[in-house]
Amino acid sequence: MALSITRLTGCNCTAQLFLLRGMRGSWQLNLTQPFKRNVTRASEPMSKSSHYAVIGALVGTLTGIGLVINKQKLLSRTKDANITKNKGQENESPVFTSEEVSEHNSLDKGIWVTYKGQVYDITEFVASHPGGPSKILLAAGGSLEPFWALYAVHSNQHVLDILEEYHIGSLVKDESSRHVGDTKDPYANDPGRHPALKINSKKPFNAEPPPQLLTDSLITPNDIFFVRNHLPVPDIDEKTYELEITGEGMKPMKLSLEDLKTKFPKHTITATMQCAGNRRSEMNTIKLVKGLNWGAAAISTAEWSGALLKDVLRYAGLDDSSVEHIQFEGADHDITGSTYGASLPVDTALSPKRDVIVAYEMNGVPIPRDHGFPVRLVAPGVVGARNVKWLNKIVASKEESWSHWQRNDYKGFSPSVDWDTVDFKSAPAIQDLPVTSAICEPAEGAVISGEDEEITLKGYAWSGGGKGIVRVDVSLDGGKTWHVADLKGENKLNRAWAWKLWHATLPLPKGADSLQICVKAVDSSYNTQPDSVAPIWNLRGVLSNAWHRVNVKVKRE
Amino acid sequence: MALSITRLTGCNCTAQLFLLRGMRGSWQLNLTQPFKRNVTRASEPMSKSSHYAVIGALVGTLTGIGLVINKQKLLSRTKDANITKNKGQENESPVFTSEEVSEHNSLDKGIWVTYKGQVYDITEFVASHPGGPSKILLAAGGSLEPFWALYAVHSNQHVLDILEEYHIGSLVKDESSRHVGDTKDPYANDPGRHPALKINSKKPFNAEPPPQLLTDSLITPNDIFFVRNHLPVPDIDEKTYELEITGEGMKPMKLSLEDLKTKFPKHTITATMQCAGNRRSEMNTIKLVKGLNWGAAAISTAEWSGALLKDVLRYAGLDDSSVEHIQFEGADHDITGSTYGASLPVDTALSPKRDVIVAYEMNGVPIPRDHGFPVRLVAPGVVGARNVKWLNKIVASKEESWSHWQRNDYKGFSPSVDWDTVDFKSAPAIQDLPVTSAICEPAEGAVISGEDEEITLKGYAWSGGGKGIVRVDVSLDGGKTWHVADLKGENKLNRAWAWKLWHATLPLPKGADSLQICVKAVDSSYNTQPDSVAPIWNLRGVLSNAWHRVNVKVKRE
Repeated sequence: MALSITRLTGCNCTAQLFLLRGMRGSWQLNLTQPFKRNVTRASEPMSKSSHYAVIGALVGTLTGIGLVINKQKLLSRTKDANITKNKGQENESPVFTSEEVSEHNSLDKGIWVTYKGQVYDITEFVASHPGGPSKILLAAGGSLEPFWALYAVHSNQHVLDILEEYHIGSLVKDESSRHVGDTKDPYANDPGRHPALKINSKKPFNAEPPPQLLTDSLITPNDIFFVRNHLPVPDIDEKTYELEITGEGMKPMKLSLEDLKTKFPKHTITATMQCAGNRRSEMNTIKLVKGLNWGAAAISTAEWSGALLKDVLRYAGLDDSSVEHIQFEGADHDITGSTYGASLPVDTALSPKRDVIVAYEMNGVPIPRDHGFPVRLVAPGVVGARNVKWLNKIVASKEESWSHWQRNDYKGFSPSVDWDTVDFKSAPAIQDLPVTSAICEPAEGAVISGEDEEITLKGYAWSGGGKGIVRVDVSLDGGKTWHVADLKGENKLNRAWAWKLWHATLPLPKGADSLQICVKAVDSSYNTQPDSVAPIWNLRGVLSNAWHRVNVKVKRE
Repeated sequence: MALSITRLTGCNCTAQLFLLRGMRGSWQLNLTQPFKRNVTRASEPMSKSSHYAVIGALVGTLTGIGLVINKQKLLSRTKDANITKNKGQENESPVFTSEEVSEHNSLDKGIWVTYKGQVYDITEFVASHPGGPSKILLAAGGSLEPFWALYAVHSNQHVLDILEEYHIGSLVKDESSRHVGDTKDPYANDPGRHPALKINSKKPFNAEPPPQLLTDSLITPNDIFFVRNHLPVPDIDEKTYELEITGEGMKPMKLSLEDLKTKFPKHTITATMQCAGNRRSEMNTIKLVKGLNWGAAAISTAEWSGALLKDVLRYAGLDDSSVEHIQFEGADHDITGSTYGASLPVDTALSPKRDVIVAYEMNGVPIPRDHGFPVRLVAPGVVGARNVKWLNKIVASKEESWSHWQRNDYKGFSPSVDWDTVDFKSAPAIQDLPVTSAICEPAEGAVISGEDEEITLKGYAWSGGGKGIVRVDVSLDGGKTWHVADLKGENKLNRAWAWKLWHATLPLPKGADSLQICVKAVDSSYNTQPDSVAPIWNLRGVLSNAWHRVNVKVKRE
């Protein structure tokens, strides 16, 4: 190992990260879990997939979007397309393949979109989109349908009339059956995803929505709710689904989906879910860490319904006097059959004040496959990793889950701890998350007109453990001076499972060529966020909750 | 009032703060407490003592408070008095009878007061009185001595200087001794204190132990446990002591000390108590705040025994379905009989996981007078201000306590909020405190020998709400690099009411002439401390939990 590390000197950072993750992941498992064979097996494919995810995200490039349109270019480009495509067509409308459409995904190449088989060049419309340019650009090179499905305002003849002005042709027929699935690919049966999601890793699928969509609504639509999968998505038949319940002093029992729906009161909560790695990319700017390179949108909010976990466990005869942890297993498994797992301390799992539910609905519909169909755990205020999806089994135990993710991952360490010195036993599993916030608009690198008198900022703020957000402070000068943002969301101090959205419209500082926008939130325990990333940096890149900062340029005439 | 604010334009900030605080405090009380007669009575003197306590700290440390006075007006008024009263007097100063003084007891007749035989027309000062107009009006037409005896903050040359500006004459000689009234010092019966305590305010008594004594033991000896009094210490006979319990839907009841000891199981917890203003002095280095200038030792830990509050309230027939807050009143009162008060949300007060007790023992002995003899509330994890001492009365209510300290004090605000813009309703009362830590050794400014190979650091770390401390990081280079400190104390993740003591022995950096030692702690929700003080600065100087920093010199040969 030491040799391998030495040999890495001088290689590029991505590769280095990749290699270290691989080596360390297996090595640690062997060291710490010598008697847990199935768990060890389960973890290996994880680290592999994790590598790919990291590379996917790091290698993936972000394109800057400028809003200045070169009209000449646009016209000549559309003309070229007409010339190329018009030949041999029966009618005058040119025909394009979806691949051709997908190439027109930036302002310099033109922005094309499709709707009901027709193709539109909306380049000139982008700047005047009522929802803002950044949002319409999410559909660039692809189909409008998934976005319009999210925003019902588009179901309007007026909108169709506007679109019609930009019509340039139609899609080739029979485009849909082009993709041939690899039958050996364990991910071949993964569900379709919304194109707005920014993919951090395809297999397993990990993706976050564009931040500017998050602040549209206190509830995140299911289609763009961030996805954090560790393994292929199980395909479960709700008719045969069974939840196994067992544990210390209990008579094992199996419950069907129907049982869960009929034997227990339906309990509904609005809760924010956040990945431990949300905002990890900021830690990567300090020193590379191991994990998916999440931006600030590995967090979303839904209304969840299901049976209270405490009701289910009492029904199954739980006597909690000898139980300290409730363990959960998912149906998601690797090729060896090893499943995802996690646990909650019994105080969290059974407290009537914690609202932990065995959920079967997400925003009023059956939970989508990517989010745990038909049943998942929702432990509000607790890190996403414990909210086990495709919930198969619940075990009441004296011990924490022996899963890799519970014992050797998703823990926080000092910045001084590296992969040579880390001792996973020395830190507790992350459960309740700390207070955090982020700026969703404007985006990093955005260019603002110096002629604007005001600048509007939007974002979210949330804290774990049910601690409500009591204040959000924003700064335009890197944290020297602060303004109090307006908050949207329920004013709960405790059992505040859902985030607050915030916004602030502030005078644009005169003469500034650039702004460093910062945000920090305060929760009901008056905990607040640390100022900077480096002092909370940790080798797994979790708990990245320093002030969120976004740098924008001010364009002066 | 509005006029006074206008007149303040242009005065120095300190004075403005000083004056506005006075006005704002009373104004809010009047607005918010119209229908709370008995509670209102309780709260008024609160604000008084609070104001004065606060002023005590400020006056003690600030110099150059310039009150902008309409000098012309003052001079002409004094001149009128001279003209009227000077006739036949031996010296140039007019002489008044106490009857004449007593006639000036309202704003339309003018507000006159006497002090040490001299007469002052303070009409114009009333609105600017830091303790609020209603408090100073208590002395209208009479002597200041009895009031100043209560609020020792006035025993200060600066206050005398201000008073001198309003001098209009003297009392007729044989009257000057009579008019003083009852000068009996309400603090005369305060208990003796340990000489190690560093006194921040004598009357009321507020003091903290030397930090280096705190790290000697997980339990702080009673004698050096920090003292935070708002009023004179009551002298209660335990034989006649009664705790009144009343509230929504309950039959009022009184319990003796014996009842508390015999009717309920004795519950013992080890809990750390911290003042909201602990480490306030660090905020004063950024910009002056209002409050006692606490160092880092307004925090201590004891073993407390008593009856669980929930047991007592259930015994008294509490039906909590309509109750949202449990209010507490102390026996400590000012000369009008108004007492200290606070409240807890019912979730905290009654939760079996919160261990709130009606305590009668502190470290195995009856609670010392300074700490609440014979009975005080101990709400572990909650700011000291809600742990009401000399507990006299418990009220189950739909509402928070109307006390000044609950509604108009002990709340956190953005650094952008000043006394002109503060809206106390906009922030929740501090309950659970955020994570904090401090370096107790070495002390600020200590000189270390460069010949030493190592340096040993010691301190404490604690978080509110029962969140255990999971890690303490220390730095010798201002936070650039970090080391993990060793922890002493129980390894609880939740219901961790007591602090952890930490220590670290580190190699002394070679060649350094000085060190900036920093500490930051992480609690079980992985909340950590903000890096710096300025971004969490607030006008009351509470919640000062940035990294604690101590600068030491290294003496090189």
